[in-house]
Amino acid sequence: MVQVNGNYLKLKAGYLFPEIGRRVKAFSTAHPDAPLIRLGIGDVTEPLPQACRDAMKIAIDAMGTAEGFHGYGPEQGYAWLREAIATHDFQSRGCAISADEIFVSDGSKCDSSNILDILGEGNRIAVTDPVYPVYVDSNVMAGRTGQAGDEGRYAGLSYLPISADNGFTAEIPSEPVDLIYLCFPNNPTGAVATKKQLTAWVDYARKNGALILFDAAYEAFIQDPELPHSIYEIDGARDCAIEFRSFSKNAGFTGTRCAFTVVPKGLKGKAANAEDVELWGLWNRRQSTKFNGVSYIIQRGAEAVYSAAGQQEVKGLVSFYMENASIIRKQLSSAGLTVYGGEHAPYVWIKTPDGMDSWGFFDHLLNNANVVGTPGSGFGAAGEGYFRLSAFNSRANVDDAMARIQAL
Amino acid sequence: MVQVNGNYLKLKAGYLFPEIGRRVKAFSTAHPDAPLIRLGIGDVTEPLPQACRDAMKIAIDAMGTAEGFHGYGPEQGYAWLREAIATHDFQSRGCAISADEIFVSDGSKCDSSNILDILGEGNRIAVTDPVYPVYVDSNVMAGRTGQAGDEGRYAGLSYLPISADNGFTAEIPSEPVDLIYLCFPNNPTGAVATKKQLTAWVDYARKNGALILFDAAYEAFIQDPELPHSIYEIDGARDCAIEFRSFSKNAGFTGTRCAFTVVPKGLKGKAANAEDVELWGLWNRRQSTKFNGVSYIIQRGAEAVYSAAGQQEVKGLVSFYMENASIIRKQLSSAGLTVYGGEHAPYVWIKTPDGMDSWGFFDHLLNNANVVGTPGSGFGAAGEGYFRLSAFNSRANVDDAMARIQAL
Repeated sequence: MVQVNGNYLKLKAGYLFPEIGRRVKAFSTAHPDAPLIRLGIGDVTEPLPQACRDAMKIAIDAMGTAEGFHGYGPEQGYAWLREAIATHDFQSRGCAISADEIFVSDGSKCDSSNILDILGEGNRIAVTDPVYPVYVDSNVMAGRTGQAGDEGRYAGLSYLPISADNGFTAEIPSEPVDLIYLCFPNNPTGAVATKKQLTAWVDYARKNGALILFDAAYEAFIQDPELPHSIYEIDGARDCAIEFRSFSKNAGFTGTRCAFTVVPKGLKGKAANAEDVELWGLWNRRQSTKFNGVSYIIQRGAEAVYSAAGQQEVKGLVSFYMENASIIRKQLSSAGLTVYGGEHAPYVWIKTPDGMDSWGFFDHLLNNANVVGTPGSGFGAAGEGYFRLSAFNSRANVDDAMARIQAL
Repeated sequence: MVQVNGNYLKLKAGYLFPEIGRRVKAFSTAHPDAPLIRLGIGDVTEPLPQACRDAMKIAIDAMGTAEGFHGYGPEQGYAWLREAIATHDFQSRGCAISADEIFVSDGSKCDSSNILDILGEGNRIAVTDPVYPVYVDSNVMAGRTGQAGDEGRYAGLSYLPISADNGFTAEIPSEPVDLIYLCFPNNPTGAVATKKQLTAWVDYARKNGALILFDAAYEAFIQDPELPHSIYEIDGARDCAIEFRSFSKNAGFTGTRCAFTVVPKGLKGKAANAEDVELWGLWNRRQSTKFNGVSYIIQRGAEAVYSAAGQQEVKGLVSFYMENASIIRKQLSSAGLTVYGGEHAPYVWIKTPDGMDSWGFFDHLLNNANVVGTPGSGFGAAGEGYFRLSAFNSRANVDDAMARIQAL
């Protein structure tokens, strides 16, 4: 009989967002008139930039003509988009990343999980705790872990705690690891890494022949010009890092879908026969075989992000959400809560008060303020006692939510 | 040091379409004025339906408003699109497929390779020969095969020859297999399967607990109302088959990107611990974790395929390409060539003349008629001595290419 991939059976049933959905639904059923405000999931709310909409409409008109019709495009993305990305996001910041090292995709979630396709099964893998659940779950599904233990931690993964004690940037592991997932600005804690901190990671990776999977989906929210937006701003990172980027959060593309991954040429891993193999070629083959590229229409929309008008609009969106974050920080602090993050990231990470646990605080806010957030423990054992609020919402909702929490 | 997936190193370097590209480039460099006509790759050429373009523009306008903005959508696709698919493509033909068994995606190439994620490593796998290369390569990359032998066949795969001798529908395997890739109407041979033939496969699969991966990307080209468009028109197929569908070829979405996969509830596989596991839940978890859904704008475009205007336009596109196929069949026959397919599929499968091998005929057409096709041997050892021409092109190009071949 056909066999299934039994690794899926190791996944914990109580995945974070479905459990939130379940509790919210139960509450709404009991209180159908309660005016819920959702600051849980990190989904943007503001309209798509005009520049992107205009560009997509032009692309659609072209698709209606014999001359302007586009069929299959390059699986790696169109050259004009890859060039725009390389120039604006990397070369402008002194990173020697070329257009052919950019792979356009339909999402960072896809890329950060699909990347395991080209990596071996014997790698020792490190994730931070708390962590974006997709890094962990994709490893479980690919058979790179053992079973989950009592705290929900999977055997075979190295968990690097991040907490107030270490300024929310994980410490360099004492045991050698081969693969390290890092996300800065961080989801869920809203922490950001300095050049010095990233340099320590790059030095560690180069010394140990490790690969850093660097998720920079939130780089646009960095306010301090001294902070690095890309791992490639660190000397030596081309030899040890792959970077994931997205248009989801800067340009509001969560429902429009476009992202990209940077795989530097010359970056190598080891085959079982001890041969050095370039990861660029493997990823190129993976994408060519298992992916058909992003819609021409959507790629034209993404290209418009780099136009003068697009850049202006993206700047406006980022400022708007960061003002929300600032309001959340200020109001929660004034309500007596201890808050972290929210200065270079659209997430505010709250220490739960009075020794409440994360789900206890979730229920407290849901029941008494009708505000939905995300329990820190859902992102990992070390997130227990924390809580995440997202700055992605309308100003009216943010103001209203904060007033309700103030009034508790 | 970080380890790579060494299975990629088993892949043959000379992948079909890059090799075609290399030869065409060399020819064009030597003959820069030669008026090439490309009937090689199966890519559509006619403008996108007006109904789809209109719907996408409305969606873009909505994305520019606070009320109409769409962020993250359901990973499985929007309910309105899944409902339209279930009603029009399945229930209208008597297939008991419900909307929640439809998973909208950005491509059948992705789905037909990603499906291996949820299947075990010990399955005995059968593919036809010739075959769409992605089925084979995705298995190689996932470590489900051994090395390639002299004929390019990979150890560990069962190859089921399809040729003129068996009417281009593979014979039921004599040895038991667990996983069978079938594609009808067939790429590359243009053959189609009857209800009787598919019933034999379904009976075999049910008897052996095997899973059929049925690729119906070309179903819209079927002309005979008696022929099945879906495997689910066969009794019992819900218990043994997953079906892949696409908007690429019927509605011209190769550059727009939308497809879907049907996973019936109740369809089961076996875990290593002998437990029966529903594939629907595994695929749902796979898509939720590793995929973010298709762009809202594109899904609105796909939905418009099912409007009255959209159906009319799709019918026009299919008729247009099938007229091309008919011209190709007629002209080649009159030129003395033996042709197959092209009656219910946009591909014509040609027996190479005078004992020429597939690449020999490729070079012959390229050099003497400046027409680019696809060597049958590129699709598998049993494709040697055959050649594929695609009906996807303008009428002028098809007429011109046929006139040139006639004149040889």
